Amino acid sequence: MTQKAWDGRFSEQTDQMVEAFTSSIAVDRRLYRHDIEGSIAHCRMLARSGIISKEDAEQLVTGLDQIRDEIANDQFVFDDRLEDIHMHVESRLHDIVGNVARKLHTARSRNDQVALDARLYLREETRHIIHQLHTLRKTFVDLAQANIGNVMPGYTHMQRAQPVLVSHHLMAYYEMFTRDGDRFRDALPRIDVMPLGCAALAGTTYPIDRDDTAAQLGFAEVSANSMDAVADRDFMLEFLSAASICMVHFSRLSEELVLWASTEFGFIELPDAFSTGSSIMPQKKNPDVPELIRGKTGRVFGDLVALLTTMKALPMAYNRDMQEDKRALFSTVDTLRACIAVMTKMLPRVTFKKDVMRHATTTGFLNATDMADYLVGKGIPFREAHAVVGRAVAYALDHGKELDQLTLEEMRTFSDEIDATLFEALTVEQVVNRRTSKGGTATENVKSAISLAGARLAAERLP
Amino acid sequence: MTQKAWDGRFSEQTDQMVEAFTSSIAVDRRLYRHDIEGSIAHCRMLARSGIISKEDAEQLVTGLDQIRDEIANDQFVFDDRLEDIHMHVESRLHDIVGNVARKLHTARSRNDQVALDARLYLREETRHIIHQLHTLRKTFVDLAQANIGNVMPGYTHMQRAQPVLVSHHLMAYYEMFTRDGDRFRDALPRIDVMPLGCAALAGTTYPIDRDDTAAQLGFAEVSANSMDAVADRDFMLEFLSAASICMVHFSRLSEELVLWASTEFGFIELPDAFSTGSSIMPQKKNPDVPELIRGKTGRVFGDLVALLTTMKALPMAYNRDMQEDKRALFSTVDTLRACIAVMTKMLPRVTFKKDVMRHATTTGFLNATDMADYLVGKGIPFREAHAVVGRAVAYALDHGKELDQLTLEEMRTFSDEIDATLFEALTVEQVVNRRTSKGGTATENVKSAISLAGARLAAERLP
Amino acid sequence: MTQKAWDGRFSEQTDQMVEAFTSSIAVDRRLYRHDIEGSIAHCRMLARSGIISKEDAEQLVTGLDQIRDEIANDQFVFDDRLEDIHMHVESRLHDIVGNVARKLHTARSRNDQVALDARLYLREETRHIIHQLHTLRKTFVDLAQANIGNVMPGYTHMQRAQPVLVSHHLMAYYEMFTRDGDRFRDALPRIDVMPLGCAALAGTTYPIDRDDTAAQLGFAEVSANSMDAVADRDFMLEFLSAASICMVHFSRLSEELVLWASTEFGFIELPDAFSTGSSIMPQKKNPDVPELIRGKTGRVFGDLVALLTTMKALPMAYNRDMQEDKRALFSTVDTLRACIAVMTKMLPRVTFKKDVMRHATTTGFLNATDMADYLVGKGIPFREAHAVVGRAVAYALDHGKELDQLTLEEMRTFSDEIDATLFEALTVEQVVNRRTSKGGTATENVKSAISLAGARLAAERLP
Amino acid sequence: MTQKAWDGRFSEQTDQMVEAFTSSIAVDRRLYRHDIEGSIAHCRMLARSGIISKEDAEQLVTGLDQIRDEIANDQFVFDDRLEDIHMHVESRLHDIVGNVARKLHTARSRNDQVALDARLYLREETRHIIHQLHTLRKTFVDLAQANIGNVMPGYTHMQRAQPVLVSHHLMAYYEMFTRDGDRFRDALPRIDVMPLGCAALAGTTYPIDRDDTAAQLGFAEVSANSMDAVADRDFMLEFLSAASICMVHFSRLSEELVLWASTEFGFIELPDAFSTGSSIMPQKKNPDVPELIRGKTGRVFGDLVALLTTMKALPMAYNRDMQEDKRALFSTVDTLRACIAVMTKMLPRVTFKKDVMRHATTTGFLNATDMADYLVGKGIPFREAHAVVGRAVAYALDHGKELDQLTLEEMRTFSDEIDATLFEALTVEQVVNRRTSKGGTATENVKSAISLAGARLAAERLP
Repeated sequence: MTQKAWDGRFSEQTDQMVEAFTSSIAVDRRLYRHDIEGSIAHCRMLARSGIISKEDAEQLVTGLDQIRDEIANDQFVFDDRLEDIHMHVESRLHDIVGNVARKLHTARSRNDQVALDARLYLREETRHIIHQLHTLRKTFVDLAQANIGNVMPGYTHMQRAQPVLVSHHLMAYYEMFTRDGDRFRDALPRIDVMPLGCAALAGTTYPIDRDDTAAQLGFAEVSANSMDAVADRDFMLEFLSAASICMVHFSRLSEELVLWASTEFGFIELPDAFSTGSSIMPQKKNPDVPELIRGKTGRVFGDLVALLTTMKALPMAYNRDMQEDKRALFSTVDTLRACIAVMTKMLPRVTFKKDVMRHATTTGFLNATDMADYLVGKGIPFREAHAVVGRAVAYALDHGKELDQLTLEEMRTFSDEIDATLFEALTVEQVVNRRTSKGGTATENVKSAISLAGARLAAERLP
Repeated sequence: MTQKAWDGRFSEQTDQMVEAFTSSIAVDRRLYRHDIEGSIAHCRMLARSGIISKEDAEQLVTGLDQIRDEIANDQFVFDDRLEDIHMHVESRLHDIVGNVARKLHTARSRNDQVALDARLYLREETRHIIHQLHTLRKTFVDLAQANIGNVMPGYTHMQRAQPVLVSHHLMAYYEMFTRDGDRFRDALPRIDVMPLGCAALAGTTYPIDRDDTAAQLGFAEVSANSMDAVADRDFMLEFLSAASICMVHFSRLSEELVLWASTEFGFIELPDAFSTGSSIMPQKKNPDVPELIRGKTGRVFGDLVALLTTMKALPMAYNRDMQEDKRALFSTVDTLRACIAVMTKMLPRVTFKKDVMRHATTTGFLNATDMADYLVGKGIPFREAHAVVGRAVAYALDHGKELDQLTLEEMRTFSDEIDATLFEALTVEQVVNRRTSKGGTATENVKSAISLAGARLAAERLP
Repeated sequence: MTQKAWDGRFSEQTDQMVEAFTSSIAVDRRLYRHDIEGSIAHCRMLARSGIISKEDAEQLVTGLDQIRDEIANDQFVFDDRLEDIHMHVESRLHDIVGNVARKLHTARSRNDQVALDARLYLREETRHIIHQLHTLRKTFVDLAQANIGNVMPGYTHMQRAQPVLVSHHLMAYYEMFTRDGDRFRDALPRIDVMPLGCAALAGTTYPIDRDDTAAQLGFAEVSANSMDAVADRDFMLEFLSAASICMVHFSRLSEELVLWASTEFGFIELPDAFSTGSSIMPQKKNPDVPELIRGKTGRVFGDLVALLTTMKALPMAYNRDMQEDKRALFSTVDTLRACIAVMTKMLPRVTFKKDVMRHATTTGFLNATDMADYLVGKGIPFREAHAVVGRAVAYALDHGKELDQLTLEEMRTFSDEIDATLFEALTVEQVVNRRTSKGGTATENVKSAISLAGARLAAERLP
Repeated sequence: MTQKAWDGRFSEQTDQMVEAFTSSIAVDRRLYRHDIEGSIAHCRMLARSGIISKEDAEQLVTGLDQIRDEIANDQFVFDDRLEDIHMHVESRLHDIVGNVARKLHTARSRNDQVALDARLYLREETRHIIHQLHTLRKTFVDLAQANIGNVMPGYTHMQRAQPVLVSHHLMAYYEMFTRDGDRFRDALPRIDVMPLGCAALAGTTYPIDRDDTAAQLGFAEVSANSMDAVADRDFMLEFLSAASICMVHFSRLSEELVLWASTEFGFIELPDAFSTGSSIMPQKKNPDVPELIRGKTGRVFGDLVALLTTMKALPMAYNRDMQEDKRALFSTVDTLRACIAVMTKMLPRVTFKKDVMRHATTTGFLNATDMADYLVGKGIPFREAHAVVGRAVAYALDHGKELDQLTLEEMRTFSDEIDATLFEALTVEQVVNRRTSKGGTATENVKSAISLAGARLAAERLP
């Protein structure tokens, strides 16, 4: 049966170019599991509600199970003329169970059916991503734990600013990816809504039991308005937004890894197994993985823009434009999953060159703020202290020295308040460990942040 | 005092073109209330923590209060050379209270200060928008209540599909804007985090009490990692995403209003006070308000893309690129607030031409699905019933009739199962009111949806 | 030979997840023709320049020809471990011709090779699209020709404004797609630049003859700076921009077709062969083709945003991020080609319901401007005339009449200057045909526009 | 006169919130010069065509001149109720010249008027930007000239790849900005089209002479289709696209400047006058200018997305949505102009630290490719040579040496073909200067590229 779902009213066959143009089977075939799962639940509900007989239902379910196996085992033939996954399944069902197949579509439409499939799919994927992010966050906590005691320059404006613990820097990413996970969690209840039974747009005249279908499929809620249920895609847009923000974080992390792996920084060595070389330059070892992740940020932003654009100004209810939703969604799901997976696998194998990092904290006047703070401690208003240190830095620059390499005598030319205790305040350990303000980089703070994060991760109940 | 915050180390004045290029005062001046509010809290905390004296604090607070009044009353002179709102306030403070002003910036940096200002601002605006959306949702519920009993065509693919209650259509928007409100609510806890005291990026050596500052400013939480706190803007990106999704809904509503106000549809009349005319065509009454809202969708999507792009691949921690965040944020806040306000004011004044709408349900075969359902009730599988009706529609089209205008005799040429009871099933009231599936358009369902929504609105606790 | 292009320096095998993550073969395999064409030209140039022997070159070319056939005939095995199309070809070449294959990559790098492939591909596709647009424009001219004499309402703000010739409306799209074609033509010279021989980034030490390679491949120009040649993708960005603008035009045309096919407008009937029905509503005939085209606008905008984002802030020269360029490019090329093709095929089969269109010009006061112009002809300043007609319209609206249905007596209550000649000025033919200003809708103008366009199309030399 | 342009037909005053919402005067007031210039040309044409009297025209022109002066001298009062710049000018004109002002709007509409203003504005700005880019390109050529002889590492994947001349690197940007200039040039003819006289959408009944108006205003062409002329904004979209691509280049250049100014690279020193410091860290000298330019890339991409979104799927002809076009356009024009100006001023004052750059070429095996080429010269196929060098690099890495620091004996363990002449090939001068392939980095090539560029710049005729 390759006939269309609507032959009766039409006097002409669909043009072949149009069949190819409107067909979505190349994209939506991956929804087959969800489509069949939804059809089985629908079927059982129809029987329990007395709309079809139990025997019919049994036949349909058996046929649907068989189709799922056929597709899973690559024994299924796809055909552009059958438009989409829904028609493929129904057509094959007809081959298997005969005319009773024509009862399956009772009390539903492809409009609510595709919404159901997409929600089943995205609920599964969102949960998976929350799990993946959980593992990634744990990876950061473990790395932070392993790097306690190691210092590196903290940067602002890509200029060395103040020394920080490597662990502190890593824990910043723990925070970002934790918020990302929370955003996906917040999105879940708006995904976890059962649309089936809204039919084309107005609901159905059959005495269906939508709560039964929802219960079978584990949905928390049933959609409250049939037009909204088939017309809206904000559950996808919200997912794509959360994914885009998450990719911002991946792009920043990747940028840092690329920089750190450069000869100029030399802070890390990427594992050979996660790098590639050059076809022409034999010495090259390229940080392809973070580069590609950074590059794929564009793809995810693009998918968000694509679906926002497609949905803009569509009147109620379903419009065919919305068929384009799945391409964008699948593209982002695939990209995000791959990025999380490969980053999570790579990070523990990155070598942090702690000596290089520590050495980098000794040049660039990273203790200048602490000299100003020292002067404030002597009673000088902060802005004045800042200016004093600015002059000391200018002097040191001219003489090719760091602040801690100036003599006490030189120091005192900038302020009478300075005495020998200044130099203690300028060591990297002091500079780091005196930053005990909540959220600061002092070792004690970072240890406690690591332990809090570990506890949260252990306690977290994953969806 | 127009000197820069960093003079000490520099041997050259800032170039004037650079001053103009880097200055943000034209944009960030609107943060003055939040900047001063944050400074006052910081000040009091510094005093309570023994970092500055109570007297100094008192002086500073008095000066800051005065500056707020000056700005509020347009008695304040802005100057590009002073870069941003922070420097303007501090510089003026110096004029007023003298050298003690130089103590205000102790234990903070502009990096955490601007993050604080932006969070105070956005928390306020997000709450305001949640309030506005609450009112808008109530407007939809009231409109739905007022329109009970009125019918209109429901559309898919912009083709008449099945009749629906006008109220049902309106309640679809209630659902959308409810989800929008929920998204802004979900964003709030991630906005409501206090960054001050993270200083430039690493925390501070002063014995500050960040919880005190947070308590003064009513923050629920204190940021956990100083680098993350000054580097991340995902609280803005999440807001911009929620705003973009909300604008998708506004663009769809606006598209429908524009269509409905056309001569072709003629479903509504917009109030003169919300329309404009033409400078050349005297007969024109244009739906400018929904057109402009639809057009402004582009602006909000653009702001989201702008900030996503800006944040892409920035290394830790603060970078000057991030100064661009506020322009995008303010633009979207202003746009969204204006769109909600004007739509909320206009909607109750729209005239729904119920006769035109009802009449439109009588052409276009909107009862065809019900004829198919009728046949299924006679034991015909759905797909077959669908084909039968398809043929009946083709026949009716050829004869310039609607289904309910065919004779029983004509009808029976399509199926023997048809008898006179069919025609009862084809009246618009039957078609609407038999759609009693949960979420469907039957009057009883819609009444119950309205009453549930009313109850939810009444019970909702606004932030 | 599945070994990597860089084994020498690495002590560890590439991780399998990384191979899958970094592999581009699934995307770039479609460049095989261009890759092999480029390799053959390179090969011949190497021989002519004395870098490899003529015999070696002959062997290589024969092998490459064979590979092209193998891929074209689906006799080629792709393997993720071989990363990209370049390595696949070279590896297979080694199987066929043995060690001499290892000479092919002399004096080039994958950086310039992939730039070459992309340029060969895009030059071909851009030319094809210019041809397609030429046909589409001809289709509009033919349609305009066929519709001469038919009138329809012209709209502004979706409100009926003034009557226009259907042909005039159609010729507006001719203008848009002509500019689109011109934009693609302008992009061509910036695509048509030969990058091979720039090697990794700095050029090569071999005495190659890049002009020879360019001549073989029909390139107009050779890239002037080796770093730029491997690092820039603006030739793609420009293409994607032109495609996005073109899709704006398609989305507008599609919106109009969707509206016109609605019951409310009823201006056109789409061919059955270009429409689809509903799985649930037997009466539906949906304008899927224009809907899908409108929806795909999002995809193209998204591809542009994707590549802009990816390229943002990449330092010189090649970075792996740029591998993402091809996905976006292919997606837009495929989408645009399909949209042009299907629209071009559908348009001539659209039925314009000229009576419905003409009838629509008789309601909505489309001649109001002409009444104002009439009054100006009587010496009344335009703004006053406008106000007079505004009052007449308000009066007519109140009395349920059109302007031409008012009596002369009624008319004269609005202005003494009115006499019976007014009514001649208000007929739709007069209103249309008096708009003889250059570019206006008068029949004589439109005929001349059609004939000019026809002449331009006939004279146009396609690339 | 603050009355609306359309009072006659309306029975109700415009709501104040609506006035504020729909008013565009805050944005479009900057078009006043172009609006008045256009009105004057229109006026003179009307008189020459006999539509108004010469005396009237004289009065109108005198009044318009006066208004231009008033606005230029800040003696003009703007008022939200007057919507836009067109109504402001006309209303003030009425104050000045009385009732004759009401004749100005004969034979035009605001739809064609605003299109004219925007085209006059954008033509001027596009020309200005082409001039600016010309100067910037000259700056690069001068810098390249000044840096001949200086070497630096060339990078791919942010890894040192091969040494290049600093001049070669700079000339890559010359190429990019040249293409940008060419794109703006190509856009000009599509901007330089005169829309006035298309009136609302259909042309006008007055015997106007559009060629006269065009000639007065220096337009190359008159728009051919009145509906297209008022409906399309692709001339803006094309400009925004070209600007976005240009900003990609600026973002890449800025990224490099930021990196080069870091302690890690240390390749350049930015002038104090183009840097800013930190309010807290006295040592900081931040590359704010390139950071901000990089950040503003987001804004320009966002403006493009905004207008693409706004224009998507708008039916013919003018819709009020399009009012949003100017905000996006002005934002990008301002941003791009500022970025070009400040970069052009800054670049000549950047200090290139040539010793640091040269020293950086000595580590990282930048001559590895040349060792492979050397081996190819000895008859070894390239892929094999590549592998040999890969092993040599691995060995050298293990022993903490560069390739040129290995002994001949060590070298010969990798290949018997190596002799002492290898070491000559490995010096940075050799490596650079042997890359004489067209477009390569050899000094002779770069000198010739500089001289060609200089000649092109000198010969270029600016619009």
